[in-house]
Amino acid sequence: MAAEAKGDKPILFSYWRSSCSWRVRLALALKGIEYEYRAVHLVKDGGEQLKEEFARLNPMKEVPLLLIDGKSIAQSLAIIEYLEETRPNAGARLLPEDPYLRAKARQLAQIIVSDTQPLQNLRVLNAIGAKLGDEEKTKWAKQWITLGLEGFEKEVSSVAGKYCVGDSVSIADICLVPQLYNARRFGMDVSQFPTISRIEKALSELPAFRAAHPDAQPDCPTTA
Amino acid sequence: MAAEAKGDKPILFSYWRSSCSWRVRLALALKGIEYEYRAVHLVKDGGEQLKEEFARLNPMKEVPLLLIDGKSIAQSLAIIEYLEETRPNAGARLLPEDPYLRAKARQLAQIIVSDTQPLQNLRVLNAIGAKLGDEEKTKWAKQWITLGLEGFEKEVSSVAGKYCVGDSVSIADICLVPQLYNARRFGMDVSQFPTISRIEKALSELPAFRAAHPDAQPDCPTTA
Repeated sequence: MAAEAKGDKPILFSYWRSSCSWRVRLALALKGIEYEYRAVHLVKDGGEQLKEEFARLNPMKEVPLLLIDGKSIAQSLAIIEYLEETRPNAGARLLPEDPYLRAKARQLAQIIVSDTQPLQNLRVLNAIGAKLGDEEKTKWAKQWITLGLEGFEKEVSSVAGKYCVGDSVSIADICLVPQLYNARRFGMDVSQFPTISRIEKALSELPAFRAAHPDAQPDCPTTA
Repeated sequence: MAAEAKGDKPILFSYWRSSCSWRVRLALALKGIEYEYRAVHLVKDGGEQLKEEFARLNPMKEVPLLLIDGKSIAQSLAIIEYLEETRPNAGARLLPEDPYLRAKARQLAQIIVSDTQPLQNLRVLNAIGAKLGDEEKTKWAKQWITLGLEGFEKEVSSVAGKYCVGDSVSIADICLVPQLYNARRFGMDVSQFPTISRIEKALSELPAFRAAHPDAQPDCPTTA
C-alpha cells in the first residue's frame, strides 16, 4: 500500500468528519498541494481504521495518514510541519516568520491538539458512553471543549489580527476551525467566544477552508 | 510577574511530577540552558495553577510555562520548538536534520503528547475518579497508556537506533521518558515494550535525563 505513494500525488487517508484529518486537508489546500483522497470509515464495520490492513500503515489505528515522497507520516501536526519544511514556498506559509509568533501559533495549536480534541474524540467518547451513558458523554465532551476554548480565547486575544496570529493564516487557525465544528456537534454556542467567532468568520470566506470542510469531502454522506 | 523574565535566565514554572514540565526540563538540560525553577504545586490548596496570579500568565492554568527573552510561552512542544529555533547551536539538537526523520520524531512525540498523556493527566483522572471511583480511574489510565505505548513501540521500531530516532536524542525521547514514569505510577510493566525499554535504559545514562528527573527537582518532597 505504501508503495503507491511513490506516484505523483500524495495520498491522504482521511475521514470526512475527523477533525485531525480536516487539519491536514486544510494544510494541503492552503499550500495548493493536490492529493488523492482515500476514505477510512471510522464507524462502519466497527471502524476501518482498526483493520489489519490500515493498522500496518499506522499502528495508532487512526487518521490522518499521509503517504508522500515515498514515505508515510501520521499525526496531523507532524504532517503539517513536514509540508511546511519541505514545501516552504508552495502556497501559504503555515507558521509566522518571527520565532516568538511561531511559538504562539504552535501553543494555540497544542491547546486544541493536546488539551481539547483528544478528550472528545471518537474512541474516548465511546469509552465514556459505555461507562456512563449518552447524557454524561455529551456533558464530558462539552466540559473539555469549554475549557480548551476558554483558554484559547484568552490566549489568542494577545496575538490575533484578522486571524489567530496576525493577519496570516497559521496552524492555529487550522486547528481551531475543526474544533469549533465539534463544539457545535455537542450543542455548544461558540458565540460566547468573541475573538474566536470573529476569526472563524474571516476564515470561512477563504477557498481553502471551504474545500477542506467535511461537507465537501467525497465520503460525506449525501442527505436528502 | 512576566517582567522578571527580562533578567538573564529564563524562568520555568514547573511541578516536579508533571510530565509536560519534565519534557521542558529535558530540553533545557540537553541544550545546556540555565534557568530559574519556579514551583507550582498542582495539588496543594486545590492547585496553585488555578489561582488568578498564575492563570493570568497561562489561561490554560497548567504547567509548564517558560518566561524567556522577555516573553512567555506555554505548551511543552511549542516551548521545545522555540528553544530549537532560537538556540540551534546550544547543546544538543532536539530534532534530526533530515525532514522525514524530523517528521517521525514529531509523530512519535505527538503519540505521547496528543494520544496518551492528555487522557491520564491530573484533571482528567480527577474527573474520572469522581464519576467512577479509584479502581476505574487506574484502569482508565492504564487503558490509554497501553494503547499509546503499543503504537509507539511499533512506530519507533522502524526508525530507532540507540535512541528513538537514530543515535541522537530528539523530542521523541523527551516525550517518551516521562510517559514511562507515569506508566509505572499506574502499576504497568513497561518491559512488555522491548524497543522502548532498551531506549529508556540508554537515555537514563545521560546527565540531562538525570538532572530533569522528578526526584532531582527542588519541589520533590523529601522522603524519610
